[in-house]
Amino acid sequence: MRGRLSIDLGALARNYRTIQNMVGENCTAAAVVKADGYGLGVAAVAKALKGAGAQDFFVANLDEAAALRGILGEGPVIYTLNGFDARGAHVYQSEQIIPVLNSLEDVQDFGAHGQDLPAPALHIDTGMNRLGIRMDRLDALQGHDFSLVMSHFACADEKDHSMNAAQFEVFQAAAKHFPRTKKSLANSSGAFRSNAYHFDMVRPGMCLYGLNPKPETENPMEAVVSLSVPILQIRDTAPGETCGYNATYRFKNKTRLAVVALGYADGFLRSLSNGGVLYWQGIPCPVRGRVSMDLTIVDLSAVAERALPTPGGMMEVIGMHQSADDLARDAGTIGYEILTSLGARHLRRYID
Amino acid sequence: MRGRLSIDLGALARNYRTIQNMVGENCTAAAVVKADGYGLGVAAVAKALKGAGAQDFFVANLDEAAALRGILGEGPVIYTLNGFDARGAHVYQSEQIIPVLNSLEDVQDFGAHGQDLPAPALHIDTGMNRLGIRMDRLDALQGHDFSLVMSHFACADEKDHSMNAAQFEVFQAAAKHFPRTKKSLANSSGAFRSNAYHFDMVRPGMCLYGLNPKPETENPMEAVVSLSVPILQIRDTAPGETCGYNATYRFKNKTRLAVVALGYADGFLRSLSNGGVLYWQGIPCPVRGRVSMDLTIVDLSAVAERALPTPGGMMEVIGMHQSADDLARDAGTIGYEILTSLGARHLRRYID
Repeated sequence: MRGRLSIDLGALARNYRTIQNMVGENCTAAAVVKADGYGLGVAAVAKALKGAGAQDFFVANLDEAAALRGILGEGPVIYTLNGFDARGAHVYQSEQIIPVLNSLEDVQDFGAHGQDLPAPALHIDTGMNRLGIRMDRLDALQGHDFSLVMSHFACADEKDHSMNAAQFEVFQAAAKHFPRTKKSLANSSGAFRSNAYHFDMVRPGMCLYGLNPKPETENPMEAVVSLSVPILQIRDTAPGETCGYNATYRFKNKTRLAVVALGYADGFLRSLSNGGVLYWQGIPCPVRGRVSMDLTIVDLSAVAERALPTPGGMMEVIGMHQSADDLARDAGTIGYEILTSLGARHLRRYID
Repeated sequence: MRGRLSIDLGALARNYRTIQNMVGENCTAAAVVKADGYGLGVAAVAKALKGAGAQDFFVANLDEAAALRGILGEGPVIYTLNGFDARGAHVYQSEQIIPVLNSLEDVQDFGAHGQDLPAPALHIDTGMNRLGIRMDRLDALQGHDFSLVMSHFACADEKDHSMNAAQFEVFQAAAKHFPRTKKSLANSSGAFRSNAYHFDMVRPGMCLYGLNPKPETENPMEAVVSLSVPILQIRDTAPGETCGYNATYRFKNKTRLAVVALGYADGFLRSLSNGGVLYWQGIPCPVRGRVSMDLTIVDLSAVAERALPTPGGMMEVIGMHQSADDLARDAGTIGYEILTSLGARHLRRYID
């Protein structure tokens, strides 16, 4: 008995078109499919996005890019965000991959090894201090040709964070150095914050997969992922007993529990111990004790006697009553980490 | 440029033999290889353990068991911990898998569907309230035949926890109901706590993979896993700048940073944000800001100017200076979750 992970490729495609419609015909909606399509399976995800009209794809590294070329075939533009890997120069060439250059060293490496490659992209750091060339180095790039100039928001999920406007201003100043080059600034949240952030291309990731790009409001995206897991055992505790590793939860009363086939090895983060919730037919059942590798214990006290599940019944982890964002909040993290952790043991089903 | 994950199968085999030698020839050391061999790749791990002498293997469910039979071939005994799945009765038969029955319902299901199967194992709950039949139900099992009677410690990693002795006592009482059946109680930590806990079989998991079964002392096991990741970029911040998503770290001084190809999608848990440490040639470099999906930023301030790394240099995540247990402590979790989260993007190398 395994968990069932459903991935709604129809919803994914509609989410893509929502973004493309929002940014209009003078702006391209690219698709970010790194980390195995945010954990959902890059082959199915990338094909569905291509079918929805995506022609530009971003991944983290060259291995992901080469795999994606095999999935998509010729045509779509594929970018690697993590810079230029000189040892793989022949792969950029053979697979027609465009590196995003992040530093002067990257630009020099590309100059030395990338003569036969199409013009690369350039990432300018506008304040995140992660990847990207600093503004004060731009003068050193005179005479280099780029197909795309981009940057990345650090705080776009926070509606009123001062860095959003500050990064936009810095990016506008940088853009003046590259008057004829395509520009891209916005990730999922950035694309929703202001039309001024759209430029020539937006690069949505999380919102395609149904996570909420505007956490302060209702989610404008369709849900893509649902996960339910089977109950292995129903059991009753006696008052005063504990459950799970290290006996971290003690029952005051006789309590009916369900033990489900779901653990941190399945992406149900251990930080959900004594904090997460699963749903039985819409009724929240709190996690009791520690989440273990393959098993989680939930409390059925809120379920009426006549509605109690039996072994084999499927409990909702992500679905109608609980989003990946909800689960993330209880785990002290973000929906992205929930998706990329979902693990390999669930039975995956792709719905069109 | 990818991370390099090394798995030392020689150390794994020696860890197995350490346990087998410790428990002596009248006790069997089984091997727990669920969740893809604790995330390290069950094919390589299970073959190495078989080569070291293991003849009894435990996995979580029937899918894992069937895959393991394909890996190991005929001979070794394979148990599923998560009960009996009646819909797969023919698979238990064809692959010669022994289910561990956890409840009266399991016993009844097995009775109805398992006529042609070898005698199953029985899990008695001795206080963990997770899987296993309660003591007050044992009378209902009269006349049933079992090949193994087992239970599981909840708190064996805590040396002096009162539940260890309490569970042992309950298990001894349960054992009297099955005078001629093999018995097993101890997991990794339990095997180290008392020779009295060994019975006929111990079931080590975590300690085989190099995690510390006795957290209060130096680790008696050999390290199995090491992980290093490439630096993508070296950068300098200006005083007052922040880094990473949501600008959670602010630099007082000009600071040299390394941005590495490692994120939560690679198993570097997001809870290590502003809390974890990577090592450059033995020097600890603290994580600054949030861990992102594919990238982490660390502070090189402690590294002398002449010893500074360059892009492409490999930083230690798990190795000589930092164990998976160390990393887990900084992440607020246990080494098990680190191992099972390691992800698929690292280049894996198995060392003999």
